[in-house]
Amino acid sequence: MKVRLEKVKGTRDLLPEEMAKRRWVFERIREVFERYNFHEVLTPTFEYTTLFQLRSGEEVVEQLYAFDDKGGRNLSLRPDMTSSVARLYVNSFQTAPKPIKWYYIANMFRYEEPQSGRYREFWQAGVELIGSDRVEADAEVIALFVESYLATGLEDFTVNIGDRVLLDEFAKMLGVKDDIGLMRLIDKKDKMSREEFVKALRDFGLSDDGVEKVLRLIEIKGKPDEVLPLAEGLFTSDAAKTEIARLYELVDLLDAYGVSKWIRIDLGIARGFDYYTSIVFEAIAPNDLGIGSIGGGGRYDNLIEVFGGKPTPATGFAIGIERLIPILEWKGLIPEPKLRPDVYVIPIGKEPDLKKAAIEVVSALRRAGIKADIELTGRKLRKALDYAGRLGVPYVILVGKKDLAEGRVTVRDMEGGEQRVVEKEEVVEVIAGILGL
Amino acid sequence: MKVRLEKVKGTRDLLPEEMAKRRWVFERIREVFERYNFHEVLTPTFEYTTLFQLRSGEEVVEQLYAFDDKGGRNLSLRPDMTSSVARLYVNSFQTAPKPIKWYYIANMFRYEEPQSGRYREFWQAGVELIGSDRVEADAEVIALFVESYLATGLEDFTVNIGDRVLLDEFAKMLGVKDDIGLMRLIDKKDKMSREEFVKALRDFGLSDDGVEKVLRLIEIKGKPDEVLPLAEGLFTSDAAKTEIARLYELVDLLDAYGVSKWIRIDLGIARGFDYYTSIVFEAIAPNDLGIGSIGGGGRYDNLIEVFGGKPTPATGFAIGIERLIPILEWKGLIPEPKLRPDVYVIPIGKEPDLKKAAIEVVSALRRAGIKADIELTGRKLRKALDYAGRLGVPYVILVGKKDLAEGRVTVRDMEGGEQRVVEKEEVVEVIAGILGL
Repeated sequence: MKVRLEKVKGTRDLLPEEMAKRRWVFERIREVFERYNFHEVLTPTFEYTTLFQLRSGEEVVEQLYAFDDKGGRNLSLRPDMTSSVARLYVNSFQTAPKPIKWYYIANMFRYEEPQSGRYREFWQAGVELIGSDRVEADAEVIALFVESYLATGLEDFTVNIGDRVLLDEFAKMLGVKDDIGLMRLIDKKDKMSREEFVKALRDFGLSDDGVEKVLRLIEIKGKPDEVLPLAEGLFTSDAAKTEIARLYELVDLLDAYGVSKWIRIDLGIARGFDYYTSIVFEAIAPNDLGIGSIGGGGRYDNLIEVFGGKPTPATGFAIGIERLIPILEWKGLIPEPKLRPDVYVIPIGKEPDLKKAAIEVVSALRRAGIKADIELTGRKLRKALDYAGRLGVPYVILVGKKDLAEGRVTVRDMEGGEQRVVEKEEVVEVIAGILGL
Repeated sequence: MKVRLEKVKGTRDLLPEEMAKRRWVFERIREVFERYNFHEVLTPTFEYTTLFQLRSGEEVVEQLYAFDDKGGRNLSLRPDMTSSVARLYVNSFQTAPKPIKWYYIANMFRYEEPQSGRYREFWQAGVELIGSDRVEADAEVIALFVESYLATGLEDFTVNIGDRVLLDEFAKMLGVKDDIGLMRLIDKKDKMSREEFVKALRDFGLSDDGVEKVLRLIEIKGKPDEVLPLAEGLFTSDAAKTEIARLYELVDLLDAYGVSKWIRIDLGIARGFDYYTSIVFEAIAPNDLGIGSIGGGGRYDNLIEVFGGKPTPATGFAIGIERLIPILEWKGLIPEPKLRPDVYVIPIGKEPDLKKAAIEVVSALRRAGIKADIELTGRKLRKALDYAGRLGVPYVILVGKKDLAEGRVTVRDMEGGEQRVVEKEEVVEVIAGILGL
């Protein structure tokens, strides 16, 4: 048996500094989610594979971590949360008061090629709003999407809004049968040069007129008041007109939320998943790190019915944590976490009474809410002070035999090196005073 | 394809109330861990299966969720965190200053029969202290173990301390070759009657004298000052004497930590994992729920060497969250989470201006840090008020045409039913005043 002692490709160890920063980001986002009255849920890490096959696009199904458990069940690690949440809704919440507003902060798994900001295990913070087909619900979710990024300090980003109804109508207008194929092609436009894109469109079977229309469609990209009129010029069907009116209303409501500054229209986006049915959106933050979308979402009015529930409209989004954090770090927006203790207690010697007195001191400090540590390796004073120095601890308390016989300990300021002898019983008060607590 | 739309056996959906309570427990424990200067890490959910096979007891290996990924790697979901943390240490931290103090709050996976407080996916909050072989390190970890439970409000529990060196010495004393087999047997003593236990010992091959000695060993259970002298009477080898002296010192240091009240000795516990090497411990809280150990740990001085690292002593523990929470709930120790919003805003009518004004009000409240929600389904006023009532919202803000024309909105106290008309621009101030913010 060859023992593999490294971590698995595409996965990461999150070390204390990264975890502290990540927790900071989670708490900022969680706080906004809760202010919008979303509530946290968590589903199991794995589900029956068929659950994910039922709803996900082909690409996601190919990337599933699927396996048989010891009871012969074919299971998969969740590739995202929406299927699981829809399953939970169908299982237990069909008769609950609507809308249901749930959020999650959880890890997902996809077997894809690791690249910048992309791992095989990754985290998402997302919401699902179930039970409203109104544009008000789209606006609420998109406003929260914007506010979530703002809560992390990010300001330089845009939320690009597209629409699956319009893409469907567009495919109809062009007489294209494989509408999903056309959407996939349009979705990938930014990964090709214009020439390559035009060639791909011709290879797909479009006429000159079709190609010209696609090129007009993808130009519908920019500030809503500037580009929505172009959409009115391009589309002719009633369904398209109704959907464009919906976009106008959405934009108007988002203005009331105070988030217009971040909103753009981009009718060329489709989002990867095949289950979106109307408004879709994604966030982009300019960066030098090669990171594209930092989150996205949209309306999925059919999914719950596909899962055997009563037809129920829904909308939601997910923020990609492994995409967002590098950008926040690159912009210096995450505060440096404080990992060092405020105080480090060292018994000078191995006598049980010294060790016990040191423990009493560190325990008293900790009980007062002070982050404190104690020498635990039995090393000599000089080495213990070296360790404290490497940790960056500002204050060390030395518990020595002579001091202790008089009920005292020594407080050492590690920066200046000054020492003062204080009563052991008063050490908490002294340290609290120094730390300004 | 038969689509499975239920959750997988042995797993659970965590709903908002459970998640809020769980988060409360996590935060209490996290706060203590950090006060003791432990730092959070998170390793990947899966590792190469061989990593877990290398160190875990047979039982855990049988319970692994193992699978091949699409690249042909044989992986397993982690059954606990210690192997992954040891792997991380060997990979990247061998030359870091010691001791290393890490904690984690994460989910684990074992395929075992679901029962009270036992799931196939479950959470643990734990610590690992790497790089000290001193009894001071054992004392620090056990004191933190006690304090972690105390932080959740639990007081009625004991931490039972056993010792693998003494069990080894005991097996030698009895001339038993299969010392692991004997330990497993002793570990299961509480699941058998005394007669069954004696029979099992005889079947194992013990003589009358051996059986009598085992019965003496398992009586070494109780307050340290009462039962450690019995251990001195039972054991004869130098190694055992040294280890008993270590236990005496441990107990003495734990007294300095102020946690003696919760400490018991129980030389009959071995803990399931085969990698423990010296002091082991587990926590028991009396309950009517059929829940046994709520956490445990011990010293594992060989594991890092087994993983190819330089020999490095270590100790740690894990708290079983699915064991602890039901007990805390049963005792009423977890505060009821507040899931409802403080304010619910309803536009009376479908005119765009009403909707926009309602959004402006809810946005202003949220920006002021107030948890507020808004009607999103377009339903009629009566139904919207019903919904607010079912949610238990204390205050509703009605945005009506007539009020709005005068720049006003109506604040309704849902308990008494009183209504007052206030300036729209002053609504945040009014609500903040009512809520006492």
